[in-house]
Amino acid sequence: MKPTYKTGLAAAAVTVLPSLAFAQEAAPGFDEIGPYIMTTLLFCMAGFLVFFMAAGFAMLEGGLVRSKNVTMQMTKNIGLYSFAAIMYWLIGFNLMYPGDSWIMAGWVGPFFSQTVLDPVGVAAAEADLGYASIGSDFFFQLVFVAATASIVSGALAERIKLWPFLAFVVVLTGVLYPISGSWQWGGGWLAEMGFSDFAGSTVVHSVGGWAALAGAIILGPRIGKYKDGRVNPMPGSNLALATLGTFILWLGWFGFNGGSQLALGSIGDAADVSRIFANTNTAAAGGALAALILTQVVYGKVDLTMVLNGALAGLVSITAEPLTPGLFMATLIGAIGGVIVVFTVPMLDRMKIDDVVGAIPVHLFAGIWGTIAVLLTNSDATFFGQIASIVIVGVFVVVTSALVWVILKATMGIRAPEEDEIAGLDAAELGMEAYPEFGKGSQIT
Amino acid sequence: MKPTYKTGLAAAAVTVLPSLAFAQEAAPGFDEIGPYIMTTLLFCMAGFLVFFMAAGFAMLEGGLVRSKNVTMQMTKNIGLYSFAAIMYWLIGFNLMYPGDSWIMAGWVGPFFSQTVLDPVGVAAAEADLGYASIGSDFFFQLVFVAATASIVSGALAERIKLWPFLAFVVVLTGVLYPISGSWQWGGGWLAEMGFSDFAGSTVVHSVGGWAALAGAIILGPRIGKYKDGRVNPMPGSNLALATLGTFILWLGWFGFNGGSQLALGSIGDAADVSRIFANTNTAAAGGALAALILTQVVYGKVDLTMVLNGALAGLVSITAEPLTPGLFMATLIGAIGGVIVVFTVPMLDRMKIDDVVGAIPVHLFAGIWGTIAVLLTNSDATFFGQIASIVIVGVFVVVTSALVWVILKATMGIRAPEEDEIAGLDAAELGMEAYPEFGKGSQIT
Amino acid sequence: MKPTYKTGLAAAAVTVLPSLAFAQEAAPGFDEIGPYIMTTLLFCMAGFLVFFMAAGFAMLEGGLVRSKNVTMQMTKNIGLYSFAAIMYWLIGFNLMYPGDSWIMAGWVGPFFSQTVLDPVGVAAAEADLGYASIGSDFFFQLVFVAATASIVSGALAERIKLWPFLAFVVVLTGVLYPISGSWQWGGGWLAEMGFSDFAGSTVVHSVGGWAALAGAIILGPRIGKYKDGRVNPMPGSNLALATLGTFILWLGWFGFNGGSQLALGSIGDAADVSRIFANTNTAAAGGALAALILTQVVYGKVDLTMVLNGALAGLVSITAEPLTPGLFMATLIGAIGGVIVVFTVPMLDRMKIDDVVGAIPVHLFAGIWGTIAVLLTNSDATFFGQIASIVIVGVFVVVTSALVWVILKATMGIRAPEEDEIAGLDAAELGMEAYPEFGKGSQIT
Repeated sequence: MKPTYKTGLAAAAVTVLPSLAFAQEAAPGFDEIGPYIMTTLLFCMAGFLVFFMAAGFAMLEGGLVRSKNVTMQMTKNIGLYSFAAIMYWLIGFNLMYPGDSWIMAGWVGPFFSQTVLDPVGVAAAEADLGYASIGSDFFFQLVFVAATASIVSGALAERIKLWPFLAFVVVLTGVLYPISGSWQWGGGWLAEMGFSDFAGSTVVHSVGGWAALAGAIILGPRIGKYKDGRVNPMPGSNLALATLGTFILWLGWFGFNGGSQLALGSIGDAADVSRIFANTNTAAAGGALAALILTQVVYGKVDLTMVLNGALAGLVSITAEPLTPGLFMATLIGAIGGVIVVFTVPMLDRMKIDDVVGAIPVHLFAGIWGTIAVLLTNSDATFFGQIASIVIVGVFVVVTSALVWVILKATMGIRAPEEDEIAGLDAAELGMEAYPEFGKGSQIT
Repeated sequence: MKPTYKTGLAAAAVTVLPSLAFAQEAAPGFDEIGPYIMTTLLFCMAGFLVFFMAAGFAMLEGGLVRSKNVTMQMTKNIGLYSFAAIMYWLIGFNLMYPGDSWIMAGWVGPFFSQTVLDPVGVAAAEADLGYASIGSDFFFQLVFVAATASIVSGALAERIKLWPFLAFVVVLTGVLYPISGSWQWGGGWLAEMGFSDFAGSTVVHSVGGWAALAGAIILGPRIGKYKDGRVNPMPGSNLALATLGTFILWLGWFGFNGGSQLALGSIGDAADVSRIFANTNTAAAGGALAALILTQVVYGKVDLTMVLNGALAGLVSITAEPLTPGLFMATLIGAIGGVIVVFTVPMLDRMKIDDVVGAIPVHLFAGIWGTIAVLLTNSDATFFGQIASIVIVGVFVVVTSALVWVILKATMGIRAPEEDEIAGLDAAELGMEAYPEFGKGSQIT
Repeated sequence: MKPTYKTGLAAAAVTVLPSLAFAQEAAPGFDEIGPYIMTTLLFCMAGFLVFFMAAGFAMLEGGLVRSKNVTMQMTKNIGLYSFAAIMYWLIGFNLMYPGDSWIMAGWVGPFFSQTVLDPVGVAAAEADLGYASIGSDFFFQLVFVAATASIVSGALAERIKLWPFLAFVVVLTGVLYPISGSWQWGGGWLAEMGFSDFAGSTVVHSVGGWAALAGAIILGPRIGKYKDGRVNPMPGSNLALATLGTFILWLGWFGFNGGSQLALGSIGDAADVSRIFANTNTAAAGGALAALILTQVVYGKVDLTMVLNGALAGLVSITAEPLTPGLFMATLIGAIGGVIVVFTVPMLDRMKIDDVVGAIPVHLFAGIWGTIAVLLTNSDATFFGQIASIVIVGVFVVVTSALVWVILKATMGIRAPEEDEIAGLDAAELGMEAYPEFGKGSQIT
């Protein structure tokens, strides 16, 4: 409730009393509560930035699909975020951070235990003064799982049906991501093995990428994409929207990487968060420029979609270690991510794996690169720890998600009927066009 | 002025001296000034998030109107925000928070008294250390009043003329909203009656909703909307834009509800803000999923515009009490908001009340529900206090805004000429199309 | 790396130890480290807001060009941001803030010295406790230089080739902007002369505006823009996008001006930041309303693009002094900015200077006005200091940027071939349309 601004000194005092009380009774002063407040604020701020990445993914994907599938892509994106939020609350968070008795306690016991927040107005004595509030930590973790699911959404666009896609999201965000995530951030065996993945090149991006790869193979390419040995381009319907999405994702990444410092209460932590901001930014610039220059050199024309994906690949690449590199190494790591995108997008097409928005090159291939690149600047990381973890997470996610895709295929069916795909999922499955008044100029089957 | 970074130690010291001085002279240390700084920061941060909701409303409405009225909708939205900002500075803020001598002093005395900010570089001794800076409080309150006006803009789209709409906004934001708001947040009789409305399900959203309802009835439906006993669908022209608007609004709501904690300087307040973030997020997810599932079940097809409005209704529903619920109750409260939207959108159509974007179901009906739902988790709220306040605010806003609408109708006229409405307000009233190059495929009268 | 949430007390303690250690060893407490942390946070937060202005410029420009040049405009915007980020790291930052031995040391010595961030986990003893972390300061300064380059992008749209434009950006962001910026914010002769430009009406906006003006004259107008003594309107293709861009820029400006307080660690600084927020907001509202009313009065119709540019001109106008005005003066200063736009946009057309998006009126003319308006409220500013600095910066930027434009014209050529311009740069130079499926209704050459 808002205070009664001017008359309301009494009311306002109620709110303020706790903190004044600290000072007066020599109870915890700002020296002791400052770090908790700052880190809680960091999580809230970084959390809303990462939340906004949901809009970024939606715009990026909505801009890169054809106009006949835009309503569907919007529906999938708001649906996946919502299901991710619910599943991570019901199952995921406690499964991923299972507490003292890891593995079985985490697995069996709190499997269905929901997240419980700090009580209203929690007292300093009951709070974890060395960290942050549960609500802020939970919210920050929650928005990460949604990013993972968004990756899958883009790769499988334009041909997967709505409900099987959402069913996969439920399993991915409630179970698969939390399990592999717990191995690293929950203090599991990868963490013990010395695996280093600061903000999730592997834990978030590759997991989404592997799940998308499994899905793309099982689902098959769009009708007409690979015909008579040729790759049939199916240009995105709205590159302004795709560019907006990329900028929103770039913005969100400051929260994604910066918030993963997990602390803002000391000089070192504050400086580190800002260091991460600078590195994240320059890696994205490096990735964008690498793609800009490379597409000019290789194809004789700059390719905007490659530049957008180059920036995103730069961001994914720096995510495993945005803290230890200097600006030069961060730029280089990001630039190599951009190079990877330019060469692997056509590679996937040659393999007839149809990834509509380039999510697999950006999130999986650049994610692997970023995870290896940790070795360049962080001496705590080991070659074995990084490679083994990439492989272990990859095998786990590919096997389990393939299993889920196959089960969904056998039960609900995952692929839209051929006539629906040709007509567009918007008209056929949802009965609602995204741009009902914009004439169709050069629509491609 | 920026400091001269490296040479500028002397210059920088000037800025820093005050705070160093505190430490050296044993003047107020961070224990005493920390809460003020943190709460001021909270208001600034929450304020820019809520400001951005102006863009969210513009995109949502611009996506849900037909392309021939998009320029007008953009003009109305930037115009209403600007008028709201000026009116709230000139009249509204002091009218809403009238200070010690409530009612008449607030009404007569400072009626035309403008808001005056803290002096530049205000000293700690002159600042309200138990709260926050006037500038931050004023800015945070100001962005709320703009949200109220945006609600009206969407409901009355596609047929109201620009200037009468803006004239209504002037009265709403300068006088009507501040008066009913003062009854609650200004320490007036609803507050004394025990009414509980944390961030404004009633004070903001229902007020906008009631004003929109009065306007929609007096203005009448769009030409051809209800013809021969049938409801003629008039699909939105750009669902990608509408989805973007929804995500922006969702983002802004973290500031809307989180900032309404009005304090960030203690452990309890920081934890509460994060608790509000988590609850706000899950309520939106609950509302979106309820609409997603319900439209599938009821209509056999998921309806994206219902899902978007479902998320928004979830947000409105949790706004009256985003703090005390746990995650389960917050999800449930939001989900019921989504259900309300799915059932009341067609209900309004049956009553031939033409609400172009669904603003009345989302902001009024879900706002009423959210205000009642406070009773589920906040034992300080009373059934009488909630219900009486809903009715009192409703009667006040409906009567006064109907009066304003009727006066505007009798003087300026509020409705665009029939031929303008058919041609589109963009071409007819503004002479400027929003999408002059996009062919018109299936335009509907 | 994320802590192992529940099991991870030991791991979390590692992070927290430094700050706890402070308390226990009577090492620097929050009284001493609080201001550094708060200011570092201010720079990070303001920095991400200003970063997002890159998206704002892209959307504004993308909405105001014709659809055949949208892909190019997107490419230029993400390209310019990326080049700005790299150049400012490699050269610009150290050139602009050259340290103790100004001028020659800054010019010759560190010319190619890259920015070096604070070490990871910098100790309090090594940090500049009176200011903020290098990473945060660098990031905040970096996003400003990108804004400067964006201004040029809009004015020269629809006819300049990609690579010469990017080449100009490299020089502007790496050398020109840092040099003139160093005269003021780097502690150079303009600063010593008493020039006052809080957040950069001249240092950022006019610099971009002058460079754009020089470019627009040398480049010449678009084909068909001025024909037979008439000005041929070439309406923007997407006014919803342009409106979104304006709102994003408005949002970013809270960081632009608010962050330029450069401190958040004292009562006075926190209150000042919020004062700047309130003034920035009201100046934008004043500019928008001035344009809204004036276009109605002068042309008989409200002109949305003028309203958008009016808001932006209000923001530019208040940027030189967002702190000292009260709300009335801030509104007035912004409103005059809006008036300037309405009268100078057609003036440029009469001079046959083709500025596609109105960047020169908004950023240059309103920037000059804002720089002079400092005299209205800040008694430290002198008439001579303001006027002389406007002239000095103007002459410097016009001469140097004209030189660069002429060299580029003589070497790479800056203007797209006539047939490319007519066909649209998207198809001709990039081979990729932004909206390949939206029928072309009333395309204008």
